[in-house]
Amino acid sequence: MKVVVDGFGGDNAPLSVLQGSALAVKEYGVSIIMTGDESVLRKTAQEHNISVEGITFHHTEDVIEVCDDPTSIVKEHAQSSMAVAMKLLADGEADAFVSAGSTGAVVVGASLIVKRLKGIKRASIATVIPSQQGCFLLADAGANLECRPEMLTQFAMMGSIYMNRIIGVENPRIGLVNVGEEETKGRELQLETFSMLKESGMNFVGNVEARDIPLGKADVVVADGFTGNVILKLTEGLAKFLMGNIKDIFMGSLGGKMAAALVLKDMKKFKQKMDYKEYGGAPLLGSAKPVIKAHGSSDGYAYKNAIRQACDFVKQDVNGEIAKVLREQKAKA
Amino acid sequence: MKVVVDGFGGDNAPLSVLQGSALAVKEYGVSIIMTGDESVLRKTAQEHNISVEGITFHHTEDVIEVCDDPTSIVKEHAQSSMAVAMKLLADGEADAFVSAGSTGAVVVGASLIVKRLKGIKRASIATVIPSQQGCFLLADAGANLECRPEMLTQFAMMGSIYMNRIIGVENPRIGLVNVGEEETKGRELQLETFSMLKESGMNFVGNVEARDIPLGKADVVVADGFTGNVILKLTEGLAKFLMGNIKDIFMGSLGGKMAAALVLKDMKKFKQKMDYKEYGGAPLLGSAKPVIKAHGSSDGYAYKNAIRQACDFVKQDVNGEIAKVLREQKAKA
Repeated sequence: MKVVVDGFGGDNAPLSVLQGSALAVKEYGVSIIMTGDESVLRKTAQEHNISVEGITFHHTEDVIEVCDDPTSIVKEHAQSSMAVAMKLLADGEADAFVSAGSTGAVVVGASLIVKRLKGIKRASIATVIPSQQGCFLLADAGANLECRPEMLTQFAMMGSIYMNRIIGVENPRIGLVNVGEEETKGRELQLETFSMLKESGMNFVGNVEARDIPLGKADVVVADGFTGNVILKLTEGLAKFLMGNIKDIFMGSLGGKMAAALVLKDMKKFKQKMDYKEYGGAPLLGSAKPVIKAHGSSDGYAYKNAIRQACDFVKQDVNGEIAKVLREQKAKA
Repeated sequence: MKVVVDGFGGDNAPLSVLQGSALAVKEYGVSIIMTGDESVLRKTAQEHNISVEGITFHHTEDVIEVCDDPTSIVKEHAQSSMAVAMKLLADGEADAFVSAGSTGAVVVGASLIVKRLKGIKRASIATVIPSQQGCFLLADAGANLECRPEMLTQFAMMGSIYMNRIIGVENPRIGLVNVGEEETKGRELQLETFSMLKESGMNFVGNVEARDIPLGKADVVVADGFTGNVILKLTEGLAKFLMGNIKDIFMGSLGGKMAAALVLKDMKKFKQKMDYKEYGGAPLLGSAKPVIKAHGSSDGYAYKNAIRQACDFVKQDVNGEIAKVLREQKAKA
């Protein structure tokens, strides 16, 4: 298994990329191709005593930044560490791709360099989010602000395969984000998607109101990318706000500090349950080859998990299963 | 000051309506007209030892339920406690209206029975939500699933007046919910609304990503009703999920219970800060006369606060100020 990683994507690059890659080589026996300025990468590895065994460097000088226009990945930044890594994936030099860089650039680059699976209308950034029941997959989390019902239905299908094969959920429950549970609720997009999902033969459990999402009412939560992005970021912000206040209560008095000591172990366990790092990164579902977007603030551990996830994506043949379903759908039509 | 209340709206009606009304009479010296089955209302008051001084009953027999089609408020349920209360408001028999009943029916009833302020394109359900900085107003929270930029701009204007006059925020900061902070982000609706708000002369602070909403980046958070509904309900659901887990940690062990005792006071204070009951109900901004939608699960205390809010809406002449701004805008155009 060969994974190509963007050595200069992410807030903590290249250090966390090197750390994560070294861990992945050691733990999973994977081979890594790392793009980026080779001398900087080697120097960073040396300074931090990180083994580069199993890592091949592919020298590039340019980097695409979060503030750059995503479409520049095929123009001004066609020689960036991310673009070159994607080209290596597209050319068959690697089995999967991981980057913690600009989400927009990953989406555009995947679409234009890696291309989509045949029959997939749009690739979807899908994110695993912790919930009361473990976790759920949110698709789309922001790649497609405007969606048609066919797109949402494909997100549901791909998300279902992902949750089954990668997270191990038997017959994942698919829910459509809406303002009410009734079939008659929502805008045109929700009304049409509801009937398509109902007819699809998938395990569609109906509309899901946003208040039921964190409670785990569905395993695959389907929404247009605008709504999905709001759900993803509000979840982050609200968790930060609430947990920050709880922390302030614990740290704000002597009694609080004593209380914190008493529940430390359980709080840590809960915090770990809520941690995105456990789930690796966000797969770009529908991409012709496995593309994983790691969290921008990934540390070495999170990066390692993103590489593991990329390997699982290949081993579990998620794309093969998606292609199979598309063929079956075509045959039926 | 005379407030007409829907005696049979809400999960805890008529008890909480009677309790809240009695408290409001006592504390604010307001007169209440209460619609609904008079014998049931009088019997409930007697059984619970609630004073009916200052409360006039207006007998109605029908009730519009949450599961009823909202438009039935002007057809099958035109004689319901909610519809009749709205008619009393429209006819000038009362200065303001409060109901904890079906949100859909309140929105439709307000639009068709109470009507809108002249020049207002759509009335908006606006909800006050606690945040790190105190609270913010979310408009629209679900009344208008499809919006045009002019509508969002009016929601911003009305919301700003509300936050200033009712919550006491000086020069409220208006933020537009979007997937990124940059002016170029979002769908057509966000792009056009951004330029309208920028030109409006209001205190527009730009796009707000959902993660910054709970942190209090804006005092008036503007969104279409679909997105706003997702924000409102996800906030509810996530707070329930996170606080429920914290509670489980406290209650799950002896150490946890001891810890809970140590931080009980601070946790209660935080819980109160997060409690919607403190802010009363959701105003229907743009309605020709003050319409307040109390939370469906309001108890007597929350209901009392909703009545106080209705009185404030009248006293602070929110509608007069909205009308004034509309006149100024018309004069400028």
